Amino acid sequence: MIVVMKAGCSQDDISKVTDHIDKSGLKYHTSQGITHTIIGVLGQALPEFRDTLELLPGVEEVILVSKPYKLASREFHPRDTTINVRGVTIGDNEIAIMAGPCAVESKQQILSTARAVKAAGATILRGGAFKPRTSPYQFQGLGEEGLKLLSMAREETGLPIITEVMTPHDVELVAEYADILQVGARNMQNFPLLDRVGRIKKPVMLKRGLSSTIQEWLLAAEYILSEGNDQVILCERGIRTFETYTRNTMDISAIPIIKRVSHLPIIADPSHATGKWYLVEPLALAAIASGADGLLVEVHPNPDKALTDGPQSLTFDNFQHLMSLLPPIAQAINRDITSLNTKIKS
Amino acid sequence: MIVVMKAGCSQDDISKVTDHIDKSGLKYHTSQGITHTIIGVLGQALPEFRDTLELLPGVEEVILVSKPYKLASREFHPRDTTINVRGVTIGDNEIAIMAGPCAVESKQQILSTARAVKAAGATILRGGAFKPRTSPYQFQGLGEEGLKLLSMAREETGLPIITEVMTPHDVELVAEYADILQVGARNMQNFPLLDRVGRIKKPVMLKRGLSSTIQEWLLAAEYILSEGNDQVILCERGIRTFETYTRNTMDISAIPIIKRVSHLPIIADPSHATGKWYLVEPLALAAIASGADGLLVEVHPNPDKALTDGPQSLTFDNFQHLMSLLPPIAQAINRDITSLNTKIKS
Amino acid sequence: MIVVMKAGCSQDDISKVTDHIDKSGLKYHTSQGITHTIIGVLGQALPEFRDTLELLPGVEEVILVSKPYKLASREFHPRDTTINVRGVTIGDNEIAIMAGPCAVESKQQILSTARAVKAAGATILRGGAFKPRTSPYQFQGLGEEGLKLLSMAREETGLPIITEVMTPHDVELVAEYADILQVGARNMQNFPLLDRVGRIKKPVMLKRGLSSTIQEWLLAAEYILSEGNDQVILCERGIRTFETYTRNTMDISAIPIIKRVSHLPIIADPSHATGKWYLVEPLALAAIASGADGLLVEVHPNPDKALTDGPQSLTFDNFQHLMSLLPPIAQAINRDITSLNTKIKS
Amino acid sequence: MIVVMKAGCSQDDISKVTDHIDKSGLKYHTSQGITHTIIGVLGQALPEFRDTLELLPGVEEVILVSKPYKLASREFHPRDTTINVRGVTIGDNEIAIMAGPCAVESKQQILSTARAVKAAGATILRGGAFKPRTSPYQFQGLGEEGLKLLSMAREETGLPIITEVMTPHDVELVAEYADILQVGARNMQNFPLLDRVGRIKKPVMLKRGLSSTIQEWLLAAEYILSEGNDQVILCERGIRTFETYTRNTMDISAIPIIKRVSHLPIIADPSHATGKWYLVEPLALAAIASGADGLLVEVHPNPDKALTDGPQSLTFDNFQHLMSLLPPIAQAINRDITSLNTKIKS
Repeated sequence: MIVVMKAGCSQDDISKVTDHIDKSGLKYHTSQGITHTIIGVLGQALPEFRDTLELLPGVEEVILVSKPYKLASREFHPRDTTINVRGVTIGDNEIAIMAGPCAVESKQQILSTARAVKAAGATILRGGAFKPRTSPYQFQGLGEEGLKLLSMAREETGLPIITEVMTPHDVELVAEYADILQVGARNMQNFPLLDRVGRIKKPVMLKRGLSSTIQEWLLAAEYILSEGNDQVILCERGIRTFETYTRNTMDISAIPIIKRVSHLPIIADPSHATGKWYLVEPLALAAIASGADGLLVEVHPNPDKALTDGPQSLTFDNFQHLMSLLPPIAQAINRDITSLNTKIKS
Repeated sequence: MIVVMKAGCSQDDISKVTDHIDKSGLKYHTSQGITHTIIGVLGQALPEFRDTLELLPGVEEVILVSKPYKLASREFHPRDTTINVRGVTIGDNEIAIMAGPCAVESKQQILSTARAVKAAGATILRGGAFKPRTSPYQFQGLGEEGLKLLSMAREETGLPIITEVMTPHDVELVAEYADILQVGARNMQNFPLLDRVGRIKKPVMLKRGLSSTIQEWLLAAEYILSEGNDQVILCERGIRTFETYTRNTMDISAIPIIKRVSHLPIIADPSHATGKWYLVEPLALAAIASGADGLLVEVHPNPDKALTDGPQSLTFDNFQHLMSLLPPIAQAINRDITSLNTKIKS
Repeated sequence: MIVVMKAGCSQDDISKVTDHIDKSGLKYHTSQGITHTIIGVLGQALPEFRDTLELLPGVEEVILVSKPYKLASREFHPRDTTINVRGVTIGDNEIAIMAGPCAVESKQQILSTARAVKAAGATILRGGAFKPRTSPYQFQGLGEEGLKLLSMAREETGLPIITEVMTPHDVELVAEYADILQVGARNMQNFPLLDRVGRIKKPVMLKRGLSSTIQEWLLAAEYILSEGNDQVILCERGIRTFETYTRNTMDISAIPIIKRVSHLPIIADPSHATGKWYLVEPLALAAIASGADGLLVEVHPNPDKALTDGPQSLTFDNFQHLMSLLPPIAQAINRDITSLNTKIKS
Repeated sequence: MIVVMKAGCSQDDISKVTDHIDKSGLKYHTSQGITHTIIGVLGQALPEFRDTLELLPGVEEVILVSKPYKLASREFHPRDTTINVRGVTIGDNEIAIMAGPCAVESKQQILSTARAVKAAGATILRGGAFKPRTSPYQFQGLGEEGLKLLSMAREETGLPIITEVMTPHDVELVAEYADILQVGARNMQNFPLLDRVGRIKKPVMLKRGLSSTIQEWLLAAEYILSEGNDQVILCERGIRTFETYTRNTMDISAIPIIKRVSHLPIIADPSHATGKWYLVEPLALAAIASGADGLLVEVHPNPDKALTDGPQSLTFDNFQHLMSLLPPIAQAINRDITSLNTKIKS
């Protein structure tokens, strides 16, 4: 922590700051510049300590030097975290493909989609049972019935399943069925929910909040990690900007940044990032080219009849076309495509 | 709902759209422009209907004409909603002043603050018992102990209390103590929480999400209203923008817009909107001048020792100074200041 | 300037940094923290120096301590700058009201508006002759003819005039007619234009860019000041955010921030900030309450026939109503309203 | 254009609107919905017409159906525009690589860079002679001297050159030397500059403004096209968002969107989009994978000694590494890589 004093502050102001540091059991180091005095604080301070320093007279700014997250940082954990779910790995050299409908609507819908995405090479089945919806008048998902249909699809196809949990109270229920629990963008800072999924033994996929910085996202992951669950997957799904052509703006640079500052796997969701099915393919390719560990893609047998997110869902044919383009892109950046090829060709 | 067809679409494309409308039991009206055919859809359609129309071939855009919220709209409910809490009214011609610490820290802290803000003219006491914090390593609030201390302060001063609830499971507990339940910015789209506070009989203050549009905010209010709770207060607390000087950017225009499109009372929170105590006074005055029904202000006996949000908290003296400036501003725009004056002077 | 070294960097990395500082003729001070080494750079470095330091191995971050602008800062120039234009002062205790049409359209239009705004209490006449328009197919202004009509209106009413200049080549021409030259939001970082208006002897009003930070805005002012023109007025006119209800989002906090960090006068433009005439009055009042030195308001005899910006223009009656509310607000925050009252009542 | 009337407006309000349309020589079509009356306006209206309609009593909203740009749209010009500059084509099936330093600093610097980027496979040399800089105290470029050094580098290497022009007055001078004129992000809405480059016979690369929507960007292109210059190249270089980790946020979806709605070539600038050299490679690959027609990359012999933009510049080695990854990515999406391969291998 570095305290920058105002130009022309008094010696008394400086003493008040150093006394405050002293009393907190920390050490310091004063350095006199031409216009500003700088006081370096040595030792591990609580986050609140910064705030209280900033209010002392003569203080211009307090700058944090250490990152506020630890368990999520690559400094703390240099090797990539790899997550294994029913034999599918996420975060190693292979590309994980999670595909399926936005919402589970019926047995027929989820089963046919599961078969189709598996045939095209997907490795994990996605589908929403509890749906966060902007309006109270929209379809809110099938609830536990949806979870049962997902399990049925897993039984038939062997694909592990990922589905969203919206409230701490449902974590146990969802974890009974799901292989990976998803925390949605709107819940990225739902701290009681993060705490609760931090206490289960299953992988959690944490979507980036609509207007969350990369640092806030990693702090949200830190909540889960600090409760003891080290199986966290991050998912970039677009941020809110002034541009209205797309539903959100995919922050493609978040992918290489996360790979640099964290050890956690990062997945891209081009469906929510754009809101338009015809942008899903180019953005999926871009995400893989930039280093993403996988994709989360919405696929629906009849997008024009979907109860949710139809405009951004791929048909089976469109999904297959996307999958056919992935191996050469993955190979170009030296990802292992053996299993991708096997799955796609088989 | 208006369907805009692409320039040069075929007659067959148009028929597919009108058939789809027909089958949904709705009526339509076709209008041929020079470049575009426009199809007006008559009748009440589900929100999903728009999505499925957008995917039909030849459709360029589907435009919603009706507002997606109803109960929150002034069209539906032309008269201002007024909320009465232990004799204090919010949303009528008077200005409601909610003040107190960000977090309840101790009996001494909350009691002294309650006395000071009451003396300066505040009408409601605020204080957090459950605190949403960006980092898992920050102070998370005193929990139920904090609620008890708030009740104690109410008992002594007579000030009604407002405090945050973070999860559906806690709603009952918080409602036992609080006079107004606050839903925080990060939870504006925590739909299970909105549903749950929609089923209690106490007023709810709904803060605007960090990156929520005014329409999304009113849809979140609609969740609460549609569950039967008609005592909803809105609170503008700043939105996230590119500017980094302030913690958030206060969207001052949201105040007159809400007054125009909705009947719900609107309060401004200049403390969170700016993150800097020295900006609280000018923004509080601005909010009142633009028509806000009240203020939510952080006040702390020793901001430099506060466990949370010290930099944006007013001292007792600063709060008193702000309060002394309010009556002439309120009077200038013809708000009733009798009680404000009485309280400040008494 | 402070160099933060990476945790675990080598002694060699540190030496490379200190050598680089040495060679640039600057001094430094090293401080060893628990995880990070911090090197304080003493002396006046060029802005580029920071960039080159950031690329050295082992460097985590380089933090600027001094503000990058000087002439625009209150530290350098503690007293408020006051600008006098034909007897009207801007930046002192009075409120300056600039009003008039977005674009000068005809002799009749500008003369009638000038008379009406003067009668209502305006002190300066605004009107565009050169208009920046988003589309090449929109009305682009009357050019020099418009400047002549503005002069005619000044002759008749005595009101000084403010008008926009869009390109360095036109500065001389516009300065022949105008009392204050306006640099528009889209040109805030048109550096050749800033240089050129920095070399004239007339006041310049610099509007904030659509997506410019307060620091970038003050650096743009610094361009003008550093060329020798010390008569700069700033104008907050809304920034671009995700909210689409308003044309822009007025950053009301920019007003007290500018008053704190700079000595330059600051004016608010509620017309462009909102794009809707019915929001102009509440935002104008808010701006004055928060400490603005004046207003820039669009007024048109027939907004529904205006060639530009009709939807955000006030009618004569609406403008008069706004003016009638200003004196009590101004008085509430102790601004001098003698002349405002005189003008409004006379 | 569609006029949506307010729920419950009077017949008189409707007549006023239809009269106004009548008087403007346009036709209309009225359609009565359950809550709203909709009036479709037929015929080509001026953009201002919308504004005046919006002000009529009883009007809720006026919606534009036609796109406001024409010459830039794919509807008007279905085939891709291909630009040929000294034998290098942009916008056809090959990938154009523009590389070089941010600013021309010396003969030695630009010549060595030109040789290195050519050897690595670049097809066009970039370099700034006139530099827009945020602070007046930063290096502003060598001016005409820089243009001469660029020509010298072209003479030796045969690479066509691209360089920025900042003001209408300099267009002629820059066009004497440059093969492609660049209009920078800060000047995207510098309309006099757009007009002027619209009247030359050389290609113009138009960078997207920091906070410009895709529609505003295409309207800026329309300015150039409408003056008669049909050789316009677009360049996505990142937009301003709340995220501070990167200098800007690259809007990767802009690339496939532009390919869909316009016929103009689109280039990506990962250097400015990120501001960090280590993000340039992954974002360059992502841009190509998403369909970009080329790249604009900053390369410098000694980034740690660069006078501008050092932190985002690639070394020769890093650029060569990036170039070695491009052919397989390009091939994966079926772009022609013959010449890319030839150049890289020769």
